[in-house]
Amino acid sequence: MRIFRLPGKLGVIAGKLKLKGKRVGLVPTMGALHDGHLSLMRAARRECDCLIVSIFVNPAQFGAGEDFKKYPRKLTKDLALCRKAKVDIVFLPESRDIYPEGFCSFVEVKGLGSLLCGATRPGHFRGVATIVLKLFNITRADIAYFGQKDAQQAVIISRMVKDFDLPVKLRIMPIARDQDGLALSSRNAYLGKEDRRQALVLSRALGLGRFLFEHGLTDAKKILLRMRQLITKQKKAAVDYIAIIDAETLKPVKKVSRGCLVALAVKFGKTRLIDNIII
Amino acid sequence: MRIFRLPGKLGVIAGKLKLKGKRVGLVPTMGALHDGHLSLMRAARRECDCLIVSIFVNPAQFGAGEDFKKYPRKLTKDLALCRKAKVDIVFLPESRDIYPEGFCSFVEVKGLGSLLCGATRPGHFRGVATIVLKLFNITRADIAYFGQKDAQQAVIISRMVKDFDLPVKLRIMPIARDQDGLALSSRNAYLGKEDRRQALVLSRALGLGRFLFEHGLTDAKKILLRMRQLITKQKKAAVDYIAIIDAETLKPVKKVSRGCLVALAVKFGKTRLIDNIII
Repeated sequence: MRIFRLPGKLGVIAGKLKLKGKRVGLVPTMGALHDGHLSLMRAARRECDCLIVSIFVNPAQFGAGEDFKKYPRKLTKDLALCRKAKVDIVFLPESRDIYPEGFCSFVEVKGLGSLLCGATRPGHFRGVATIVLKLFNITRADIAYFGQKDAQQAVIISRMVKDFDLPVKLRIMPIARDQDGLALSSRNAYLGKEDRRQALVLSRALGLGRFLFEHGLTDAKKILLRMRQLITKQKKAAVDYIAIIDAETLKPVKKVSRGCLVALAVKFGKTRLIDNIII
Repeated sequence: MRIFRLPGKLGVIAGKLKLKGKRVGLVPTMGALHDGHLSLMRAARRECDCLIVSIFVNPAQFGAGEDFKKYPRKLTKDLALCRKAKVDIVFLPESRDIYPEGFCSFVEVKGLGSLLCGATRPGHFRGVATIVLKLFNITRADIAYFGQKDAQQAVIISRMVKDFDLPVKLRIMPIARDQDGLALSSRNAYLGKEDRRQALVLSRALGLGRFLFEHGLTDAKKILLRMRQLITKQKKAAVDYIAIIDAETLKPVKKVSRGCLVALAVKFGKTRLIDNIII
């Protein structure tokens, strides 16, 4: 397993791999790797010749007052997990090499980037789309792997790939969950015992949404109300949003149909969790 | 010479060329080709295996009330010129294939895009950077050729390439001029006889700027005043800007030094012309 820190050096290697006709797979991460990340790596390992994992806590996607500084960093453990997953290359850049002095180019995915999570995290998806575009270019990825957990991110990146004619295929992999149903997230590490217990309501609420739909209820408003009632029974839960939306445009639907995305963001104390299902 | 209209089809061909190790050169144009474009094609022909010329009048870089509709379109002549220049592939897309329904991703080069031409043409460089990124991706260009005539465009694209780690080399080629000094531009076709005569003041004013600097004057304000006095002697000239700026940051300089960019935009009637020199 090779470790690269400089974008330029990795770019040269990646360019050579491409000339040899190798299929490059990219799993972009912010580290603090969990089973969700590992499932992406397994998928990439199966279908690519060269598996690159990037580990970079991207400052551009954190807002003022967000958790950039305290975001979990577990480099030693992460590298061990990468080795075990038979990763070929870990890309471990420094901020100063990703955003050198004078950096001023950004990707804006208008509309999609300001809804849902974007409403409470302005600039977040600009930061995400920009770093992802950079990682695609640096690694010359043929296939890139993302988790469905970050549903809006997946939609925005898919849109960017289409709009910019990027020569990369995307694989959006299912959400990995703990046995109790909690969607895996590096941020789960912030949760105290009681937060964590209450946070289990998120997957239960999504399950309720699906249950109601499958039993004939299609009025989004009514389903959302029932979900909200369930969630707010937990005293620590502060709902950011619960939404039933079109899985491509992210626009709210009135009448729920198969393929819709049910997504939510809820804070437990200072920890903001997201989760979703496709109905 | 092959002609492609669909981005997807050209992308497949370009991908195959890259796998064979061919060096792809791209000359992006809006058509109405002149000697400036041809000089880019000649340079590309010399150093690339496959020369792609795109001809696309890009609606996204025209503002409301600008000349998108009447921008000169000379397809038959353009194709003949491309054949003569031994172009391999002409990319001739339709707007609906470049900006399909739901398109919403854009490149913003913050700061640089709102100065100079960007001040009177808001959104112009967003449109330019976005289409250029798309063309790079569709054609998988190794080297792309631009004219120094559009100095700000060259700076912004260079910035984007650096910021986004794009695997493409840029060649910025010297301004091609008519014998009387007028910088070649597809928009020169708009000029009436008297406009054209008066427009010759632009290259003369740039020459005056260089002359003053080379004779010891380094106060940007004084040089700019003398240039403005010369230009406004022409009754039809309406100055948009005359600026002496850093050639990378585009910021105005107070004290002129070698390597600075002297740039101007002046309207003659409805026709807005730009020109520049590097001192």
